[in-house]
Amino acid sequence: MTAAPEVIGWAPGGAVRLLDQTRLPAEEVWLEIDTVPEMVEAIQSLRVRGAPLIGVAAAMGLAAATVARGNASRVWVEQAAAELEAARPTAVDLSWAVARMRDAAAATGDDSEQLARALREEAQRVWDDERAMSEALGAAGAELIPDGATVLTHCNTGALATGGLGTALAAVLVAHSQGKGISVIATETRPLRQGARLTAWELSRAGVPAQVIVDSAAGAMMAAGEVDLVITGADRIAANGDAANKIGTYGLAVLARAHDIPFYIAAPRSTFDATLQSGDAIPIEQRDPAEIAAAPGADALNPAFDVTPAGLIAALITDRGVIYPPLDAGIRRILE
Amino acid sequence: MTAAPEVIGWAPGGAVRLLDQTRLPAEEVWLEIDTVPEMVEAIQSLRVRGAPLIGVAAAMGLAAATVARGNASRVWVEQAAAELEAARPTAVDLSWAVARMRDAAAATGDDSEQLARALREEAQRVWDDERAMSEALGAAGAELIPDGATVLTHCNTGALATGGLGTALAAVLVAHSQGKGISVIATETRPLRQGARLTAWELSRAGVPAQVIVDSAAGAMMAAGEVDLVITGADRIAANGDAANKIGTYGLAVLARAHDIPFYIAAPRSTFDATLQSGDAIPIEQRDPAEIAAAPGADALNPAFDVTPAGLIAALITDRGVIYPPLDAGIRRILE
Repeated sequence: MTAAPEVIGWAPGGAVRLLDQTRLPAEEVWLEIDTVPEMVEAIQSLRVRGAPLIGVAAAMGLAAATVARGNASRVWVEQAAAELEAARPTAVDLSWAVARMRDAAAATGDDSEQLARALREEAQRVWDDERAMSEALGAAGAELIPDGATVLTHCNTGALATGGLGTALAAVLVAHSQGKGISVIATETRPLRQGARLTAWELSRAGVPAQVIVDSAAGAMMAAGEVDLVITGADRIAANGDAANKIGTYGLAVLARAHDIPFYIAAPRSTFDATLQSGDAIPIEQRDPAEIAAAPGADALNPAFDVTPAGLIAALITDRGVIYPPLDAGIRRILE
Repeated sequence: MTAAPEVIGWAPGGAVRLLDQTRLPAEEVWLEIDTVPEMVEAIQSLRVRGAPLIGVAAAMGLAAATVARGNASRVWVEQAAAELEAARPTAVDLSWAVARMRDAAAATGDDSEQLARALREEAQRVWDDERAMSEALGAAGAELIPDGATVLTHCNTGALATGGLGTALAAVLVAHSQGKGISVIATETRPLRQGARLTAWELSRAGVPAQVIVDSAAGAMMAAGEVDLVITGADRIAANGDAANKIGTYGLAVLARAHDIPFYIAAPRSTFDATLQSGDAIPIEQRDPAEIAAAPGADALNPAFDVTPAGLIAALITDRGVIYPPLDAGIRRILE
């Protein structure tokens, strides 16, 4: 089995232990969180990030806060769930994980000890399910990676993004552990540099040969024949297969098409949002322009995501197997 | 007339005064340079950058070093010219400016005072010619920018790149001074952030509305209909119109084509290299991977340039007017 580094866990007192990703790769700093405002801050400041791991962290944070509060009511849990859900608007996994916690609370009596126990158990299941999904998704994705291939990937989609093996990176790690002799080109991923900081850190620990490039070098690498396939993650995928992911994903998909390179998106079932007909309906978070650090007096625009239309996606890699076009039919099938 | 900020000049003692661009926009630090090794260091460390300004700075630096040396011979000048020419391999303006200085030295006797005077005069002419070219190029380019248009540009191509109005930015500044009500989207330009630091600084000083984006957001901006045209500079253009420019330019050209947005390259005659049949023959500088600052232990690849094939270029904007396809014929015409 392919091993993932530990990035989240329970502290002995019931708080959530969280590796602060803003401090990586220079330092490995662990946070202990047992209140809702602390977890909201950790999510908004990207101390914890990656759509699936945000869902896991929110569920575990809600459970930890409920335990720490002692006398939590279902009304209080409902209010806390709403605060966590609003922390980041684009990631559907967050809504999905919080919904599971709401359902668990609703299925419990008003006794606060029972409530805390039920939420703690449900949060553990959210995490376990995430790890099982990563394994299944990685196995499916590895089949698409030929021996000796170079995979270009964007942002971070490994353990640091999911709490398990990851999504796009799960496919890479499983292919590597199968002895396929693959290598990776990791885009830096401005403005927050998740590729250069986090993906490079994970690949280096896993012993996968990897090279970091600036985001804008992807076209030159493809033109030079250095890229065999592209795999990215996604934050939300509409019913027709349009996929929102880290800013720059759309450009990579256009470039891959121009160079006849297959472009894949890897995402667990929880990333699919059948209530959205197309990518036009996916809300795109605008983040603080200060992240770009433009010259004093200059304005900046900082959209965190873009939408890649289904037509540019060669296949979707999911924990229920690979979906080939027409994507809408395949998405309906796995969501049944 | 459109004014350019001062970025290079002569110190009273004959040294070159140079605005250290690595310190912008935080600080305006001026260097005084009168030796060849100092100018080579300034060029290699990008204290002075932009293909045309590198040429001007090398010519002025060679003149200043000859003056400072006192007893320089033509043999010494030839050796110094070779050192300056080797400082950066991709920019043809550097070879071109140094060749002018060599010719001026060859046309002089061996008297070192005469030699110094001749080189100082030729360096002044290189600079004056550059400013005149910028003016002509800006006027030609402004005609391609419609009223109210938003221009996307990459890297820095203004006074800080040329010593005059610039290339791509000259077109923008002239169009702005004509009251066309234009605005600019400036890409950050990793790894050295010339767009966020230098272009944003120049546009802010000129009062042109501008917004900085990360490089990878260009595709999303085009898909949203926010970009009317793209203009970049070039470091070297082959006889067939293939153009080497800052890494990421090629990706912008592919994206522009995919969105039916005209993609222009603005470059003075000195950027054209008729000795190269196509972009395949343009040497591409690989810079220090440390500029990317990947995680400790991770490898990085840092190509400084890429090549945009002629077929993706809607027109070349030059100081001799606009060249439309077929570009090779137009290039032959202006080089006659």
